[in-house]
Amino acid sequence: MNLSVIAIGDELLIGQVIDTNSGDIAHRLNPFGWNVNDVQIVADDADSIKTAIDRAFQSSDVVITTGGLGPTKDDITKATLCSYFGGELKEDPDVLDNVKKVIEQRGLKLNDLTARQALVPTSARIIQNTVGTAPIMWFERDGKVLIAMPGVPFETREMLDTAIVPQLIDRFKSDLSYEHRSVLVIGYSESLLAMTIADWENSLPPYLHLAYLPKPGLVRLRIDGTHNDKTFLITEINRRHMELCRLLGANVLCDQDLPVEKILQDELKRHGLTLSTAESCTGGNISHLITSVPGSSEVFNGSIVSYSNQAKMHLLDVASETLEKYGAVSTQVVEEMAEGACMALDTDCAIATSGIAGPGGGTEAKPVGTVCIGIKTPGGTFSYSHHFPGNRQRVIVRASMTALILAIEKIRELPIHIK
Amino acid sequence: MNLSVIAIGDELLIGQVIDTNSGDIAHRLNPFGWNVNDVQIVADDADSIKTAIDRAFQSSDVVITTGGLGPTKDDITKATLCSYFGGELKEDPDVLDNVKKVIEQRGLKLNDLTARQALVPTSARIIQNTVGTAPIMWFERDGKVLIAMPGVPFETREMLDTAIVPQLIDRFKSDLSYEHRSVLVIGYSESLLAMTIADWENSLPPYLHLAYLPKPGLVRLRIDGTHNDKTFLITEINRRHMELCRLLGANVLCDQDLPVEKILQDELKRHGLTLSTAESCTGGNISHLITSVPGSSEVFNGSIVSYSNQAKMHLLDVASETLEKYGAVSTQVVEEMAEGACMALDTDCAIATSGIAGPGGGTEAKPVGTVCIGIKTPGGTFSYSHHFPGNRQRVIVRASMTALILAIEKIRELPIHIK
Repeated sequence: MNLSVIAIGDELLIGQVIDTNSGDIAHRLNPFGWNVNDVQIVADDADSIKTAIDRAFQSSDVVITTGGLGPTKDDITKATLCSYFGGELKEDPDVLDNVKKVIEQRGLKLNDLTARQALVPTSARIIQNTVGTAPIMWFERDGKVLIAMPGVPFETREMLDTAIVPQLIDRFKSDLSYEHRSVLVIGYSESLLAMTIADWENSLPPYLHLAYLPKPGLVRLRIDGTHNDKTFLITEINRRHMELCRLLGANVLCDQDLPVEKILQDELKRHGLTLSTAESCTGGNISHLITSVPGSSEVFNGSIVSYSNQAKMHLLDVASETLEKYGAVSTQVVEEMAEGACMALDTDCAIATSGIAGPGGGTEAKPVGTVCIGIKTPGGTFSYSHHFPGNRQRVIVRASMTALILAIEKIRELPIHIK
Repeated sequence: MNLSVIAIGDELLIGQVIDTNSGDIAHRLNPFGWNVNDVQIVADDADSIKTAIDRAFQSSDVVITTGGLGPTKDDITKATLCSYFGGELKEDPDVLDNVKKVIEQRGLKLNDLTARQALVPTSARIIQNTVGTAPIMWFERDGKVLIAMPGVPFETREMLDTAIVPQLIDRFKSDLSYEHRSVLVIGYSESLLAMTIADWENSLPPYLHLAYLPKPGLVRLRIDGTHNDKTFLITEINRRHMELCRLLGANVLCDQDLPVEKILQDELKRHGLTLSTAESCTGGNISHLITSVPGSSEVFNGSIVSYSNQAKMHLLDVASETLEKYGAVSTQVVEEMAEGACMALDTDCAIATSGIAGPGGGTEAKPVGTVCIGIKTPGGTFSYSHHFPGNRQRVIVRASMTALILAIEKIRELPIHIK
C-alpha cells in the first residue's frame, strides 16, 4: 500500500521544529508492506492544506496528516478538513469526557478553549486520543482514507501503536502476510557490510528484501518478507535470518531489534551482575539511556558524573598522580574511574568515560572527539581510546553507544555463573 | 520571496534519515524576507522528482533541491534535472579539479565512480562545492530558479552560508523584511495562555502573527512579522514583544528562544554559582541535558545518580531514618539529596529528583508519575511534589524540564552578588 504524509505547521517551515512524525509513521508501517510515497510539509493555511491533500490522493489511497489540531487560533487543520470532507463541527460527548480525563491527569482544569477540542466534524469517525486532547479523525471518501493525527510526536507514536496501525492494516486487509526479522551488526561500516554479505543478499528470493539502517555504533539489518502463504513465509524468513546470523558470527550484537541499553540489561540479568557508571564527557547520558529501560533498577545502582577533576578524585578515588601524569582524558584514568565506580556504588561492573566532546578543549595530541572508555567486569578492567567525528551532541551519542556495546561484549565473555 | 524545498532520497521516506536541510535553509533565508512555502520529500525516482518540481514552481519562483547527487546508482537527481531543463551531461574540468582537491583532503584517491561527479548538465551554471564532491547546479528558466544542493547536511549548511544565500539575495533583491521574536512562558497550559492573552493577540496588526509552540514544561510563543519597512517592522515587533513580556510578567522564563539548560547555565554564570545534581528517577537525564550545552564545565561539577537507597545514603549522606520514615520518594529525601550533592560535589546549588517513572513501582499514595524535586541554592533548600502523566520516557522528560525550570526560578530570586 502507498501512503502519503502531510505535516502541517508554520513552525516546521521556519525550521523551529523538525518533522519526525513522518519517519515514525514509516518505521511503523514499512514492516507491514506499506510505503510512504511522499511527504509534504505545509503551513497552517487552508488553501495549502487542501492543495496538499489533492496532491497526496493522486499518488496514495491513504493520507495521514499530522499537526494543526491544537485549540488555538493558528491551528486550522480540523476546520479545513471539515470544509474539505463536508459536514459540520459538532460537540462529541465522548471526546469531551476524554479531554476532561486527559486534562485531569495533567493536574489541570478544563477551560473553554480546551473544551473546543470536543467539536469534531460530523463527516469523521473519531478515535479517542488517550494521551492528548486532540481527537484523531478518520475520514473516508471513494475508498480513500485520510487520518488526521496530532503534531506532538509522543502522542502520534502512542496512537500509531495502539490504534492507527492496527486499524489501517485491518481496513486494507489483503491475502498477503508480512514478516520481518532484524539483526544488529557491530564492527562494520554500512558499505563494508554490504560487500561482505553481497552474495547472500543476491541469493534472496524476490519475496524477501533486505534494508540497511545504520545507527550510531552499529548497522541494523532488516529482512522484510511478503507472501500469500504465511507458514511458508515464516519458515523461509527464519531460515534466511539464521543464515545471516551465522554468516556474521561474532559481529551480531543481537538477532532482534532491541535498544542496546535493553540488551545490556538482559546480559547483566543473565549473569546476575550489577552495574554503575562513571561519566565525564558523556555527562550522564549513559546512565540516562540505561535508566530509560524499565527494570533497570534491578541491575543498575547509579552513576557518578565526575565533570571536575575534584569529583574524579573525591568520589571515584582516581589518584591525583594519574591525572597529572596522563591527563583526565586517558586510558589510565578511565580504568581508575571504572574501578572507583564499582567501589563507590557497590557494583560488579562499571562503565567509565572521559573525553573531549567539544567545541572547545581540544589539543593536537587529543583533538575534539577523543574519548577514552573504561570497562570493569569480574573478568578484569579494560580500556579503549576512540576518536569520534562530528559536533558535541554527536560525540556524546557515539561515545555512549560505543561504551554500552563494549560493556555487552565484555560481559558476554564471562561464564554465566561468574558470581 | 517564496521558496520551495524538495528533499530527495529513499532514506528519508523510510525514516532512516530525518530531513534537517529544509530547516537549515529556512533558518538562513527567513531573516532576509524569504519564506519556505512548502517542503516535499520524494524518492530517488525521476517521475517523482519531476512532478515535485512542477508542483513547487506552482507556488514558488525559487526551488532548492537537496540530495541524490552522489556517484552511485541510486542517485539520479543530476540526470533527472538534465532531462527536465535540457542540455547534456559533459565533463567540467574545473569540477574535476575541485573533486580531486576534496578527495585528497580526505586522504583518499580519486576512483572512476567519484570522477563521474565532474559530469554536469550544460544547462546549469555550476557553483563549486568546496566541502564535498557533488557540484551545486543553478538552473534558470522563465525567471524561475532551481538550485540543486547535496544531501549531506554539513555540506548544505556550508554552501548556503558561503555561496547560495548571498547569490539568491543578490538575484532577487526584495523590499520585504522578516523578523521573529520569541517568549518562553511557564505556568500556563497552551489554552489558558491563549485565553489570557486573547485581547492582546486580537489587537495585533495584520503584518504580525502569533504562533503557539508547546514544549514539555513550557509554551513557546513566537511573533512573526513581515513588512517592507524594516525599521518600522523592528520598532513595532520589539514594542509588541515587550508588551507581551510585560503582560506575562513572572511567567516569562526567557524573552528569547533558548534551550532551558542554556538559560540555567547563563543564570549560574551571572550569579557566579556552581551546580551539581543528585538524580534518582531522572537517571542522569538532567546532568545529560546540562552537559549538552558547550561551556557547562565552567558551572557544573557533576552528578550523583543514586538509583539505589545505598547510594543515596553513602554518596549523598541521606539519613536512613529519613528514607525509612518518609520513603525514597519524598520531599524530605530530595532536600537531603540536594544538600548531599552540594557537599559531595562541592557546589553552591544542586537539583535533586526522586520519583516513580514507571511502569512498575507505583502505589495508591504514590502512583506512577509522582516525582519529588529538591532545589538547593545559597538562599535555602526547597522541595516540590509533582505528578506527571504519560509513560516512563515522558515522566523522565517532564520531571527533568520542571526541575531545570525550578532551579532557574530559585536562582533568579537571589541577589547577583550572592557569593
